Amino acid sequence: MSSVSVIIAAGGAGCRFAAASGVSVPGAIPRAPTKAFIPLAGRPVLAHTLDRFDEVESVLEAVVAVPADALAPARQTFGDRLPSGRPLRFVAGGPDRTESVARALAVSDPKADLVAIHDAVRPLIRPAMIRAAMEAAAEHGAAVVGRPVDHTVKEVAPSRCVVRTVPRDGLWIAQTPQVFRREVIVRAYAARGATAGRVTDDAQWVEAMGLPVVMVEGDAANIKITMPEDLRLCEALLAAGWPFEPPTVPS
Amino acid sequence: MSSVSVIIAAGGAGCRFAAASGVSVPGAIPRAPTKAFIPLAGRPVLAHTLDRFDEVESVLEAVVAVPADALAPARQTFGDRLPSGRPLRFVAGGPDRTESVARALAVSDPKADLVAIHDAVRPLIRPAMIRAAMEAAAEHGAAVVGRPVDHTVKEVAPSRCVVRTVPRDGLWIAQTPQVFRREVIVRAYAARGATAGRVTDDAQWVEAMGLPVVMVEGDAANIKITMPEDLRLCEALLAAGWPFEPPTVPS
Repeated sequence: MSSVSVIIAAGGAGCRFAAASGVSVPGAIPRAPTKAFIPLAGRPVLAHTLDRFDEVESVLEAVVAVPADALAPARQTFGDRLPSGRPLRFVAGGPDRTESVARALAVSDPKADLVAIHDAVRPLIRPAMIRAAMEAAAEHGAAVVGRPVDHTVKEVAPSRCVVRTVPRDGLWIAQTPQVFRREVIVRAYAARGATAGRVTDDAQWVEAMGLPVVMVEGDAANIKITMPEDLRLCEALLAAGWPFEPPTVPS
Repeated sequence: MSSVSVIIAAGGAGCRFAAASGVSVPGAIPRAPTKAFIPLAGRPVLAHTLDRFDEVESVLEAVVAVPADALAPARQTFGDRLPSGRPLRFVAGGPDRTESVARALAVSDPKADLVAIHDAVRPLIRPAMIRAAMEAAAEHGAAVVGRPVDHTVKEVAPSRCVVRTVPRDGLWIAQTPQVFRREVIVRAYAARGATAGRVTDDAQWVEAMGLPVVMVEGDAANIKITMPEDLRLCEALLAAGWPFEPPTVPS
């Protein structure tokens, strides 16, 4: 299987939890500089995320972009090796997600065949899903884990009045990991200045160049922790035995 | 507060679970005619759903549309009263969701101010959310519980190649309950034959008449159970203490 550099985006401000709920999160590290350090089942969210990637055989290294003021505590907590012994590096993120990923990409190993970019706050990612995205990226150049939209979608005005129901056929929600052949994502990021508008995932830079991106169907447990409720959901899933064994026929 | 008839749509075929996963669901009632009868934490999903509505003071009655072959077992299991003593009726659903709701609407109490329509397989609905949707419907005529889309949305070709990234500003995912002033939903359903295309929620009939529909922001735990994984998620949330008390500041 192709070798892969793992880039973890952990650059978000950690204050959204408290700001959104108006209260402190029980058990949260006070003023955590990034949500990736918030404890999940007793360990930082980022530790869970790194463990899942460390289970994938062809991982060469992990590079994690964190806010500048989180660099020292991150290095102190996680050291410079994954549990398997493979290199782990922290870099200071940029002013937005794209610039954070660009800085991590700049120091990643040029010998890797693929680059997998993942949100630090998606700890419930199955290694099998990472491998499936890697295979698709090796074949097509770029692959995004996601889910078909199976709910009704409304276009809503700022007044909260419904404008219309949007046809959902062919709509997918993109998650991460997003995996790319290294030369594809390096080219796409080098050209990123030429793209206008707000960009919310890495694949958009590849799409902007007219290169193919394929979707790989993921699962609903690949939750992005952005609100206290999401953290509770992840805690509940881990307590219930995630990753679940495939269901068996009762005897 | 305005009085409300509750219509529960439980008419879906129950075979999708096994068909999707290729295996039996442990603990599932063999060949359950509707997913609403599958056990969740030891009780049918529908029992949980009815309990949440029964906590709302101004509920007049509940009418549940089930597949015709589920009518007798439903009446035997649930009787003709909610736990509070308010009337509970079962009707045979139609060939699709719209026709099932239409049949329930036809027998619902004409004295109600509002009609709340809810998916049987969304058992984790907070009574506070039901009340919020009722208040919005009383004011505006029609209200839909939903969530703003906060993920990247892709338009994907049947080949699974990404066509483009869809701007997500103003996009919401509709859930249920969807609540209507009774005269609004009765008129909208009476006119439903005039609307072409596939309709996936009740509010679309109101939108088609040019009447206002407002969104009410719901929460992520309002899961629609369509796959075995969703059932596990709901089990895990209930085991973790859903509905969670608001988080408190640690002393």
